[in-house]
Amino acid sequence: MKIVREISSLRESLKEKRKNGATIGFVPTMGFLHEGHQSLLKKAREENDIVVLSVFVNPIQFGPNEDFETYPRDIERDEKVAGDAGVDFIFYPAVEEMYPNEAAVSLTVKARTNVLCGAKRPGHFDGVAVVLTKLFNIVQPDKAYFGLKDAQQVAVIHSLVEDFNIPVNIVPVPTVREEDGLAKSSRNVYLTEEERQQAPAIYKSLQHAEQLIENGERNPENILASIREELTRSTGGEIDYAELLSYPELKKIENIHGKIIIALAVKFSGARLIDNLIIEI
Amino acid sequence: MKIVREISSLRESLKEKRKNGATIGFVPTMGFLHEGHQSLLKKAREENDIVVLSVFVNPIQFGPNEDFETYPRDIERDEKVAGDAGVDFIFYPAVEEMYPNEAAVSLTVKARTNVLCGAKRPGHFDGVAVVLTKLFNIVQPDKAYFGLKDAQQVAVIHSLVEDFNIPVNIVPVPTVREEDGLAKSSRNVYLTEEERQQAPAIYKSLQHAEQLIENGERNPENILASIREELTRSTGGEIDYAELLSYPELKKIENIHGKIIIALAVKFSGARLIDNLIIEI
Repeated sequence: MKIVREISSLRESLKEKRKNGATIGFVPTMGFLHEGHQSLLKKAREENDIVVLSVFVNPIQFGPNEDFETYPRDIERDEKVAGDAGVDFIFYPAVEEMYPNEAAVSLTVKARTNVLCGAKRPGHFDGVAVVLTKLFNIVQPDKAYFGLKDAQQVAVIHSLVEDFNIPVNIVPVPTVREEDGLAKSSRNVYLTEEERQQAPAIYKSLQHAEQLIENGERNPENILASIREELTRSTGGEIDYAELLSYPELKKIENIHGKIIIALAVKFSGARLIDNLIIEI
Repeated sequence: MKIVREISSLRESLKEKRKNGATIGFVPTMGFLHEGHQSLLKKAREENDIVVLSVFVNPIQFGPNEDFETYPRDIERDEKVAGDAGVDFIFYPAVEEMYPNEAAVSLTVKARTNVLCGAKRPGHFDGVAVVLTKLFNIVQPDKAYFGLKDAQQVAVIHSLVEDFNIPVNIVPVPTVREEDGLAKSSRNVYLTEEERQQAPAIYKSLQHAEQLIENGERNPENILASIREELTRSTGGEIDYAELLSYPELKKIENIHGKIIIALAVKFSGARLIDNLIIEI
């Protein structure tokens, strides 16, 4: 495994591999790798000759009141995880390497952003789209891997790739869960013991919603009411949002049909947890 | 030579060539090829194994009052020119192939656009940037060729490629001129006989400006005054703009130093002509 900090050096190495016919799988991250990332790396390792992991805390996707400075960083630990996962290259650029000058060209994501987590993070997905456009152009991967835990991000990336004809195959990877169904997250450790007991209700409420749909319920409001009722009954958390939308368009629908997402965010005392279920009817 | 109308088909063909180690040169155009384009194709032919020409009148770079509908098109003639120039592939997509859906992601060029021709064409370079991003992703060329007659476009393309790390080498190609110095343009035929006699004064005024700079003049206003005086004296045309800016930043400067551009647009009765000179001091 090689750690590369310069764009030109990474390009040089990958060009050589590509010349020899190697396929390249890419997992872009902000580092501080957890089991979710590991599942992406595992899949990339299975499907490609070369696996590139990027570790870059992207300043332009953080809002002015967000935690760019304090976002957790631990490259030594990330190296260990990447090594165990069989990564070939870690791309670990400095901010000045990625943004040497003030940008003259900006990107705006106009659809799929004003709902779910995006509603409260104006500009967030613009920053995500810019850094991914750059990373895709630097790595030129055959496939890139993204976790479905952030299903809105996956939807936005599909837009980006389609609108600009980016030659990469986007591979969405299912959310990794604890045995009791709770979606894995670095934030789970911030839950109190009682909250940790309650938290699996998030996924259970999604599964019950799926059951209701299987039983014929087609009214989004009824589904969401049932989820809210269950979460209020079984947890002390505060529901930040509960939405049922078309997927990947992320538009409100009157009747449940086609591919949809049910997405939740629940605030506990020490952590805000998100989860979702994508269902095709 | 092959004419390809579908993105997937072009990708397939080029993938095969690339696999065999071929380098790809790309000349993006809106068709109705003239000698300027031919010089781009010639250079591309000299420097690459495979030459791709795109012919696509890009609707999103035309303003609401501009001539998208009436923009001249003649694919049969373009085929002939391309064939003579040794082009391997003409990419000639329909509008629906390039823009099948309403875009969710937009691009905005914030610098280098509010001067010269860009000042009067808001959004023009945003449309250029989008179509080139798409074309670069479709063709994935090693080199792409652009005429310096539209030096502002070249400057904007440099921004785009740098900001997004697009893996393409931009090759600016000098303006092709008539024997009397007039920059070649499809619009020259719209000049009256008298105007055609006067038009070489545009390039002459630029050459005299260069001479003044070589002789030590460093004040942009003095240079521009001399150009205006010469154009007013020798032509009946109306000066649309005469600007001296840093290049490729296209910023106003107080003193002439480094790399600069002197750019002119002159309106005659039947045609508006542009020309420029880039000088490194």
